[in-house]
Amino acid sequence: MNSLARFSVNQMTVKQLSMPELVAACRETGVPGVGLWREPVRSYGLDATAKLVHDAGLAVTTLCRGGFLTAIDPGERRRALDDNRAAVDEAAVLGTDTLVLVSGGLPPGSKDLRGARERIADALGELGPYAASRGVRLAVEPLHPMYAADRCVVSTLAQALDLAERFPAEQVGVTVDTYHLWWDDTAPAQIARAGAGGRIHSFQLADWTTPLPEGVLNGRGQLGDGSVDFRVWRGLVEAAGYTGSIEVELFNEELWARDGREVLAETAARFVEHVEHVEHVVR
Amino acid sequence: MNSLARFSVNQMTVKQLSMPELVAACRETGVPGVGLWREPVRSYGLDATAKLVHDAGLAVTTLCRGGFLTAIDPGERRRALDDNRAAVDEAAVLGTDTLVLVSGGLPPGSKDLRGARERIADALGELGPYAASRGVRLAVEPLHPMYAADRCVVSTLAQALDLAERFPAEQVGVTVDTYHLWWDDTAPAQIARAGAGGRIHSFQLADWTTPLPEGVLNGRGQLGDGSVDFRVWRGLVEAAGYTGSIEVELFNEELWARDGREVLAETAARFVEHVEHVEHVVR
Repeated sequence: MNSLARFSVNQMTVKQLSMPELVAACRETGVPGVGLWREPVRSYGLDATAKLVHDAGLAVTTLCRGGFLTAIDPGERRRALDDNRAAVDEAAVLGTDTLVLVSGGLPPGSKDLRGARERIADALGELGPYAASRGVRLAVEPLHPMYAADRCVVSTLAQALDLAERFPAEQVGVTVDTYHLWWDDTAPAQIARAGAGGRIHSFQLADWTTPLPEGVLNGRGQLGDGSVDFRVWRGLVEAAGYTGSIEVELFNEELWARDGREVLAETAARFVEHVEHVEHVVR
Repeated sequence: MNSLARFSVNQMTVKQLSMPELVAACRETGVPGVGLWREPVRSYGLDATAKLVHDAGLAVTTLCRGGFLTAIDPGERRRALDDNRAAVDEAAVLGTDTLVLVSGGLPPGSKDLRGARERIADALGELGPYAASRGVRLAVEPLHPMYAADRCVVSTLAQALDLAERFPAEQVGVTVDTYHLWWDDTAPAQIARAGAGGRIHSFQLADWTTPLPEGVLNGRGQLGDGSVDFRVWRGLVEAAGYTGSIEVELFNEELWARDGREVLAETAARFVEHVEHVEHVVR
């Protein structure tokens, strides 16, 4: 099997590339899949993007992202739900079956994590059936606990599954991202739980490197530069039955400052070096 | 009861104060306890510090810190154990019964969190009896998962208890620090577990504020400035049987740039406002 057969590049990894440049670079490098983001898709045009990627034979592995479902204000809540339905529609046009959700942080002044998580559950109850009716699955992504206040109150895979399991797996599952979960000794058991329920809808990779930059958003490490043992994580999701694409999503100022095609080629090479040829790890 | 009766200021909160300035400011403000750090104690002199704080009638609630027990290299390991025995001796001289341990991160090049945690257990097996023989308890402090690689592979209270419970409670317990644990929905149950075993050896407070600064070390928020509901956390440790001091430990560049006495007075006032008068919270 082609060593890049499972590889997908998330568009954010090489955000310096325009949509046509991204597609051309994927073809040159032999990358079979891309994870897209709504903002650049909108800039290039939804239908134009769909045509561009499909004409190039690229699979769209995910659309990033919906979510931000924690608002208390009714008007804000309604706008968030409308926006998520629009994201589902865009995913369907792009031909991907997976919309990644970043759930949202605490509303201003609130200290109630549990209440925020319940509002996410309420929103998933509305959005899940809508998504499934369009052939799209929602993938709740736990983000690292350092984002709990301002970005995502869902911090662990257990919390994400506690939410997802209230709904059918074809409506709501989870995203497993090594950057967010690598530190958690309960994650292996939770990956098994997710796999048993058919809920691993996306598997994403980034390495953990330090020191973290100010704001802690754009310091996700290139594969092999940090503390994550990718073969172990790939082994875990595969032991749980996951056979889908493996998406590399790096937010990294240093990578963005370089030539995007070079970064894509490097990322593909790192994928082969650090992720392929999985060892069977007994834990 | 005096509303500051349980309050202790960790020395790092006002590190701009010299040891005599700190002691004088505590007396002026009516602060009954201090958590000390080894480096400033060494600078002022161990015996001199012990005399100074005791003559002032101040309780030393903790000594910070031992730990850094994850090295693989035998020489480094031996030096770490020696250093921790010295820290225990210093705690005994200062008259505190609690030495806080920050366990240490991954050794350079290692990706093996589990192995690092096992080496900590090995070290606790050596240090626990030594500490208990001198009337000192070790308090393993789980640090926020954002420090897992470079500072502390013990990221959750559950992990800390998994380590501590291998040993008698009078040898090894835990530190509960809101800054590190506030995001974790499993922490309430783990606090109950810690309390049932008599293992809450220290309770520390800091608020969670964003954006995080570069390196994520010195952005711990003043009480009331962030996302932590301190009354809930105080209620949790008290429901678990904790009746000891409540130490405020802030690492914060902005606070350090101000007049230390003013910061101490502000911190004491915030403590009364946000921590005292605990509501009985049903969770």
